[in-house]
Amino acid sequence: MSRYFLNPFPNQALTEIIGLRMIAKAFRQFLFQWGMTMGQKIFNLSNHQAFQKLKPLSKSFKDKNNHLKNLIQTKNRFKDFSIQKHGFSYDFSKQRLDKTILKELFELARQAGAKETFSQMVSGKIINATENRSALHTAARDFTQDQILVNDMDVIFEINKVNKEIKNFTEKIHKKKIKGTTGKSFTDAVVIGIGGSYLGCEFVYTALKHGIEPLIDLHFLPNVDIDNFGQIIKTINPETCLWIIISKSYTTIETMANLNQALLFLKSNNLDPANHLVTVTAKGSPGDDPTNSSLGSFHMFDFIGGRYSVTSAVGGVPLSLAFGFDNFHRFLKGCHTMDLHALNAPEENNIPLIAALINIWNSNFLDYPALAIIPYCTALSNLCPHVQQLYMESLGKGVTSAGKSTNHRTGVIIFGEPGTNAQHSFFQLAHQGSPFPIEFIGVATPVYNKSQATSKGVYNHQELWANMIAQAMGLAKGKDDDNNAKYFPGNRPSSTIVINDLTPESIGMLLAFYEARTVYEGFILGLNPFDQFGVELGKVLATDIRDQIKRKNIDKTYDFTSLDTATKFYLDILFKGSL
Amino acid sequence: MSRYFLNPFPNQALTEIIGLRMIAKAFRQFLFQWGMTMGQKIFNLSNHQAFQKLKPLSKSFKDKNNHLKNLIQTKNRFKDFSIQKHGFSYDFSKQRLDKTILKELFELARQAGAKETFSQMVSGKIINATENRSALHTAARDFTQDQILVNDMDVIFEINKVNKEIKNFTEKIHKKKIKGTTGKSFTDAVVIGIGGSYLGCEFVYTALKHGIEPLIDLHFLPNVDIDNFGQIIKTINPETCLWIIISKSYTTIETMANLNQALLFLKSNNLDPANHLVTVTAKGSPGDDPTNSSLGSFHMFDFIGGRYSVTSAVGGVPLSLAFGFDNFHRFLKGCHTMDLHALNAPEENNIPLIAALINIWNSNFLDYPALAIIPYCTALSNLCPHVQQLYMESLGKGVTSAGKSTNHRTGVIIFGEPGTNAQHSFFQLAHQGSPFPIEFIGVATPVYNKSQATSKGVYNHQELWANMIAQAMGLAKGKDDDNNAKYFPGNRPSSTIVINDLTPESIGMLLAFYEARTVYEGFILGLNPFDQFGVELGKVLATDIRDQIKRKNIDKTYDFTSLDTATKFYLDILFKGSL
Repeated sequence: MSRYFLNPFPNQALTEIIGLRMIAKAFRQFLFQWGMTMGQKIFNLSNHQAFQKLKPLSKSFKDKNNHLKNLIQTKNRFKDFSIQKHGFSYDFSKQRLDKTILKELFELARQAGAKETFSQMVSGKIINATENRSALHTAARDFTQDQILVNDMDVIFEINKVNKEIKNFTEKIHKKKIKGTTGKSFTDAVVIGIGGSYLGCEFVYTALKHGIEPLIDLHFLPNVDIDNFGQIIKTINPETCLWIIISKSYTTIETMANLNQALLFLKSNNLDPANHLVTVTAKGSPGDDPTNSSLGSFHMFDFIGGRYSVTSAVGGVPLSLAFGFDNFHRFLKGCHTMDLHALNAPEENNIPLIAALINIWNSNFLDYPALAIIPYCTALSNLCPHVQQLYMESLGKGVTSAGKSTNHRTGVIIFGEPGTNAQHSFFQLAHQGSPFPIEFIGVATPVYNKSQATSKGVYNHQELWANMIAQAMGLAKGKDDDNNAKYFPGNRPSSTIVINDLTPESIGMLLAFYEARTVYEGFILGLNPFDQFGVELGKVLATDIRDQIKRKNIDKTYDFTSLDTATKFYLDILFKGSL
Repeated sequence: MSRYFLNPFPNQALTEIIGLRMIAKAFRQFLFQWGMTMGQKIFNLSNHQAFQKLKPLSKSFKDKNNHLKNLIQTKNRFKDFSIQKHGFSYDFSKQRLDKTILKELFELARQAGAKETFSQMVSGKIINATENRSALHTAARDFTQDQILVNDMDVIFEINKVNKEIKNFTEKIHKKKIKGTTGKSFTDAVVIGIGGSYLGCEFVYTALKHGIEPLIDLHFLPNVDIDNFGQIIKTINPETCLWIIISKSYTTIETMANLNQALLFLKSNNLDPANHLVTVTAKGSPGDDPTNSSLGSFHMFDFIGGRYSVTSAVGGVPLSLAFGFDNFHRFLKGCHTMDLHALNAPEENNIPLIAALINIWNSNFLDYPALAIIPYCTALSNLCPHVQQLYMESLGKGVTSAGKSTNHRTGVIIFGEPGTNAQHSFFQLAHQGSPFPIEFIGVATPVYNKSQATSKGVYNHQELWANMIAQAMGLAKGKDDDNNAKYFPGNRPSSTIVINDLTPESIGMLLAFYEARTVYEGFILGLNPFDQFGVELGKVLATDIRDQIKRKNIDKTYDFTSLDTATKFYLDILFKGSL
């Protein structure tokens, strides 16, 4: 792939000599800088022939004959525009496209080399060029490959080793062989971690706990807001609580600040961190020091980025504590099923690839600025916040992976709430305001299986599905009415995903679907879905302000006069405690 | 105001004769239909002179000299573009506008008669023309007016009456004078209600429980998902649990379905609904029948719509149960403070009006398709879902209140998560992807006041604020960099709201700010912010599908062959329980 020419040493063997690797790295950096300085057209989505063809197609397609109410009635529409594989159904029959457009979209994927890049990713190539790293979240649940070498390290071996440690540790907790300082066994765990160190884990925990009674209840403490901490300590018994500190670098500001609260809390309860603290962090980080007072440290790796890390120790430790390692393993199996599908299925049958192409079609050609994710399932209520991070942090870029400013739409806004709740919230706008595509998600069988009442002749779960089906249909078809207030324009696109149930396998497939879709979309858009330089500026500016606050903490007479009026105003309020 | 000419009988006295009122209603409907049939230009935002002036201003304003990094450095920027009133601060100094634009925006508000319409609303005029109703959420916390007459009924008297009933009832619960069937006092309450019957209440409950220990723990059961029910009954003791059923019509499908589960649950636990059930509903609805088996019924009124109803019995019953009526009363006082400000402050000092104008400026002139709401406060985590409904259901319209199709942008997408969490989630896109305006919210004093650790020389709450200040600054200023990947374009607008604390008064002000801003925006955009015809189509279509399901529940051989392929596919899965 031309866009990866920036790595002049793709052959692993060549780079085995340490000195050469250093030179290679410097040369790659030089090429990268040079590529940008020269304003070189390394990758440009609209240079692809297929992209050029799609532009006029999208204009002519806006003809009213292509209103969704007509499209969905064309012959074999559902059959030709939906795929069912491995107990996962993806229905895009209510998207605003036809076979001609779909054919060009597949062509776009081929011209962008999407599948080849995905394959390179899975095999450990340095796909995250800006950070000079592999992107091997798929290796965290790879039951097919025996070995993946990255910088002389066998990734599969290392991951298996960590998983064995997680299994041993969590079994000891469950069998009450490891107990707290006062000899009591553990009932709760507080997960201290932010962003990718908690959103995916929280999604999976919320989804699974409907069907599997947690052995250990999890609580999430991401925010540096002291009231986040204050609320959690109200609900736990300090003697029976573990604290899991998750940070790759072990320097994340929020996580370290909350760790310090946790340490003070343990101390004030006369509990020893050596009996209550666990870390998930990179090998050699400050959190990995064996002289630390903790129950132990589980390694995470730089080839798995935060938002892709729920199948690593980041999710592995808390989820195995909650549900047992075997259930975590089942979850990994589900992810792997989807990974293999994403890797091997041809473009025309590849669910995450098609879903990525539809996103690109909707954003770059039909100009929709957002995508709503609406699971008709309360257990999936944390899916949207997770995908929001996964997608918006991966694709919310202004620059291609080759360092060129983008001349096309990149990631869009992701938002959503569970249905039917969302129907009673923002679906007014979905039907009659500025349109946006929607992704409906249904779960065929709910967890609750006790006797239950019917209403209007149907069970609650049936009512739920009746609504999900009706919404997709109503958005597509619309309704004419002489009264403008009761007129529904329709032609509002949606997809519908169905999984069988809330088992770890199904949740794994859903998670891996969104991961694969995101990276496919990134590859086709020419972006690096694994870096996040856009979060850096805020960190730098916060440091300056923190230093100001620190000065006043030390010297009460310090008065912020050197600062701009707005900043001074806010810091004065902060110290005064009110306006 | 010309747009309300549709009500030809604004004078209450005239309509006191019942017969005349009927004729008036029919005539209003005739006029409404006729107005639309004739395609009459009753109201058109772009017909306003100020709107016409703003269009060219918005174009010339896009000049790079007006980059926010320059604007925020102009003299007196913060002083002139921020307002502090009643312990509420609204800072719009980082919005992309100047004094000339602001002046025209105020002119737009005047030409649209925004303040007059607000005043009519507060005094009980039939402002919700399409549904022929007043919109009197402000009356639910009006401690100034002695009487508001609507259709011969004194609204203030009726509201006070209901509030006294709520006070008496909840005090009896707290004093253990009312107990469950088995003689145990109540510890929990499940709120069954969806959309406006729960989102506002959930927001306020979540916000207040940080600072006030609940006397009764609330649980929310909005969704018809049986697993929503299944999870809640795991966490409560049936003997000590109240069920609060909230539905104006007492026919809401989801609410009735969940009521039926609750009744079965009570029965299977040998508990009498007469001791465990409370209803909040309209006078005379099926839920208001005194022969029903329940502890009683509290009235809600058709002049307060769901999404504006948290200060009525909809919030009053559950929130008084949770925190005591006195705290609910304090919350109402906070709302009233903001209502009076919204009603009385001149345009130039009117916080919700200015905030509404800024939304209109951002959507209609600067073309932003969304607004993110980012409270730097975990306790406010349910604010965004509430405002999402309030705003998107009120303003997500394609038609003016006079029945004309809109030729301007109406409501935009609202989404958000608490900061700093959001920084580690989607702020990558906020800084470097397609821009959208952000509303930051800070709380000057947190609830937690026990001893705590510092990190890097600052307390957690200080770290939180350092980040909030830094993000607004970074988004505005941006940062140049020769490396495109590290370049921040800046010029991304934000506002910052600060409230003093998490007391009921402050939360009340925040709630009423969003309500007033929403209706102001609706009035200026020419929309009716109180109807929601866009939710009807889905209901109708769901009825058809429900009937199909019901037929198969009765007759297992029924096979859906009359349906379209997609619907048949989903109903087959639903009955099979898997793909």
